[in-house]
Amino acid sequence: MKDFVIIGNKAVTAGKISLNDLPGSAGRMDVLCRCVTASLFISFGMRRDINVHLVLKGEPGPEKIVRFNGETMRSLNPDERSSGSLIQKALLINATDSEQQSTPGVFVRTGNLALLLDEFKAERPIYYLKEDGEDILEMIQNSETAADLENGVYILGDNQGVFEEDEKTIENADASKISVGPLSLLSSQCITLILNALDRAAPDKEL
Amino acid sequence: MKDFVIIGNKAVTAGKISLNDLPGSAGRMDVLCRCVTASLFISFGMRRDINVHLVLKGEPGPEKIVRFNGETMRSLNPDERSSGSLIQKALLINATDSEQQSTPGVFVRTGNLALLLDEFKAERPIYYLKEDGEDILEMIQNSETAADLENGVYILGDNQGVFEEDEKTIENADASKISVGPLSLLSSQCITLILNALDRAAPDKEL
Repeated sequence: MKDFVIIGNKAVTAGKISLNDLPGSAGRMDVLCRCVTASLFISFGMRRDINVHLVLKGEPGPEKIVRFNGETMRSLNPDERSSGSLIQKALLINATDSEQQSTPGVFVRTGNLALLLDEFKAERPIYYLKEDGEDILEMIQNSETAADLENGVYILGDNQGVFEEDEKTIENADASKISVGPLSLLSSQCITLILNALDRAAPDKEL
Repeated sequence: MKDFVIIGNKAVTAGKISLNDLPGSAGRMDVLCRCVTASLFISFGMRRDINVHLVLKGEPGPEKIVRFNGETMRSLNPDERSSGSLIQKALLINATDSEQQSTPGVFVRTGNLALLLDEFKAERPIYYLKEDGEDILEMIQNSETAADLENGVYILGDNQGVFEEDEKTIENADASKISVGPLSLLSSQCITLILNALDRAAPDKEL
């Protein structure tokens, strides 16, 4: 099981978002949509052992968490508009602090990064994608570290990165910094690289 | 310099495409749009040493090649709709077998895969992404092979893969088969993995 947590610094938390303008109308929701595709899709199928948690921090608030669950996901295609449309439906729900399913495999609640990491902290190794982190391809050589990575919770910023307050939250959750190469890449590209490193470490696993 | 060639088996070759339905209205043009983003974008900038050649094979014909040139590219954002809009503009040009610039950094002509590979064949190493190919991470360990890869032309299929006739064309161009891991992935994900392998082999290069 792997969980990806993507921080949408300006991603809107309610209201009607325009699927014709995900970057502008919805606070760079396109970044989050690409992360959903990178996390869940392979060529002829879907990765079932993955959750994607989109932490929406934009207007009008309160913050929300939209979760895409690979195991139960239906009606999702790899194009940005497809995941955007499911996010749109999730935002129409009257969200509370209990998760509600908005469409098959998509869940929404009010909540923020600190709450989410608190839930994971005792149970799972937490990783924070950062340019100065340890290289995942080196970490995966060690079989103990590899097992942790396979069970990891991975936190990524969006196009604006991760602001100081969230970095403190991440630090408090004892996250390890990891990196995926010498360049700073799109969040969705980082997810592809993490999953490929894990695929290579266990080429025969069930998805 | 790297060139990516993506075969759009059903990608439309003329007419008005709907940016609100790139998968349906335009023959899975969304696949090609994601390949453009994967090829050209990093977190805070663009890879300038890359060309992306989209080989459009769909209705109504004749086949066209739309080239995105990293060096001169302007007005491109990472969302699918942005590259889709530039493809749409390229398709409005009355294309001939000479390349014409439709918007800054985007070029269009009539032409097919065989023509494109003929132009590359004498000058550049050609690679074909295929599950049974040699692993790029192993190939890149050898410094001579790494130099070839850095200068490579990479051919990828779309969601339908590569049909037999095109496979023959690729074979005739003496392409080497390469792979990026144990799973069959989206074309755009493969591009991210190729570029990461090259970035890792030359971490200090200029983009």
